[in-house]
Amino acid sequence: MKSLQIFALKSSKIVDWGDSVFDIFLESIKNENFEIEDDDVITITSKIYSMEQKAAVILKDVIPSEEAIKLAEKSTLNPSLAQLVLNESKGEVYGAVYKAILAKTDYGLSANAGIDQSNCPEGYALLLPRNPDNAALEFKNRIKDALGKEVAVIITDSRTIPLKKGTSAVAIGVAGIDPIIDEKGKRDLYGYKMMITTRALADNLSTATNLLMGETDEKMPYGIIRGLEYARAHNVSVKSTLMPENYCLYFAPLLELINKTNET
Amino acid sequence: MKSLQIFALKSSKIVDWGDSVFDIFLESIKNENFEIEDDDVITITSKIYSMEQKAAVILKDVIPSEEAIKLAEKSTLNPSLAQLVLNESKGEVYGAVYKAILAKTDYGLSANAGIDQSNCPEGYALLLPRNPDNAALEFKNRIKDALGKEVAVIITDSRTIPLKKGTSAVAIGVAGIDPIIDEKGKRDLYGYKMMITTRALADNLSTATNLLMGETDEKMPYGIIRGLEYARAHNVSVKSTLMPENYCLYFAPLLELINKTNET
Repeated sequence: MKSLQIFALKSSKIVDWGDSVFDIFLESIKNENFEIEDDDVITITSKIYSMEQKAAVILKDVIPSEEAIKLAEKSTLNPSLAQLVLNESKGEVYGAVYKAILAKTDYGLSANAGIDQSNCPEGYALLLPRNPDNAALEFKNRIKDALGKEVAVIITDSRTIPLKKGTSAVAIGVAGIDPIIDEKGKRDLYGYKMMITTRALADNLSTATNLLMGETDEKMPYGIIRGLEYARAHNVSVKSTLMPENYCLYFAPLLELINKTNET
Repeated sequence: MKSLQIFALKSSKIVDWGDSVFDIFLESIKNENFEIEDDDVITITSKIYSMEQKAAVILKDVIPSEEAIKLAEKSTLNPSLAQLVLNESKGEVYGAVYKAILAKTDYGLSANAGIDQSNCPEGYALLLPRNPDNAALEFKNRIKDALGKEVAVIITDSRTIPLKKGTSAVAIGVAGIDPIIDEKGKRDLYGYKMMITTRALADNLSTATNLLMGETDEKMPYGIIRGLEYARAHNVSVKSTLMPENYCLYFAPLLELINKTNET
């Protein structure tokens, strides 16, 4: 038998513009009498890093382009929001459905390039934090300095699974843990070599803590996984979790059709 | 603070053709001195149900059609396997990449309609179990009869996230738990109503236990989540986790392009 534990920590306060995510974490574990241990994996919702970094825009100040206005019609989103999605994805949008634009960013395919209008002050649109790998590494190093513990850190964002309802989570920044487990060459139950199995460790840890963290008013932006066996890793980046476009089961067929449509 | 525990149980034996998944589970918890409690959520990998149900085919006996041969070329898969994917998806395939065909089944979009050649005897292709909702319900009822405990049961399959490497898991059968948490109408941190947030509870629980269960030779087909707050639910089905095609962020743009291509 194997086992692990997952905790969600209540934040000592709602993270406001410019507040330190790390300082509030230290306050929160103190309030909860929670002790961090070596090899804990700490997950942090990206939203509070966006607040720390003030990675947000006053929506009505954004002037939508013609392309944004078209996208807004298709998605029934605010045209200024559609413009922000175009900006954040550098124009890489691949379609739209009700209230969501399919956009590609440095962190994969997502709805509206991760831009969020909930859980932030009215009139603002919250962007994803800038350089979340770096934010994760800094948090990990500050835990080492402040508490003497070696942990792994994952910054998370929400995501959906094709043709399934409801949100899961993925990693958009990592430190101290290899985000992918490669099982190529390992053997299956019958001793045959596995050909292509890799496991999305950091994404799966993000989803697991999300079970407790909530997305409404739970005020639980921090998750902790304890008891997981993993090898410590340095110089890691969430970039290594990205699938090349032409190997992606969902994206490659879409691209192929786009190319075909453009040819005709 | 909230917390939960996840366990992965070592199977008392490798599940063979026609073996009872439930009987082996009972043996396994006995071997491990593990006691099931009320409200535990038990996850079971679909593969062992396929073995119980003998939902498998001798690959070389399958005669591939022309369409299957084309699909096999595109995916570099065995033509007989491509034929099985066509059979299992009732012809609903939407593209192919190296070693994977994008297929739609009753459980969403997946690689190769969930057909697996690893972790089953050589020469066979393992299909998804027939009627996993029913299998989950039967397992739940037998736990009640044998141990007197009210649990929830989830049958799981592996899945990938667009443009991300590595496997996660989803539910393909559920009993005793509402697979979706609907947070529409709840309020965010600033008191504004949430518009479209639903959470993929059963899928996320599948992914969470998958952190421990492994996909190679770990022989851990059973997961248990303990400490999760959820409302018991009856008459549930994994069907309620499916997104209508025209609302799916990934699938709707693909469909639109297919329709456009067919028109020209």
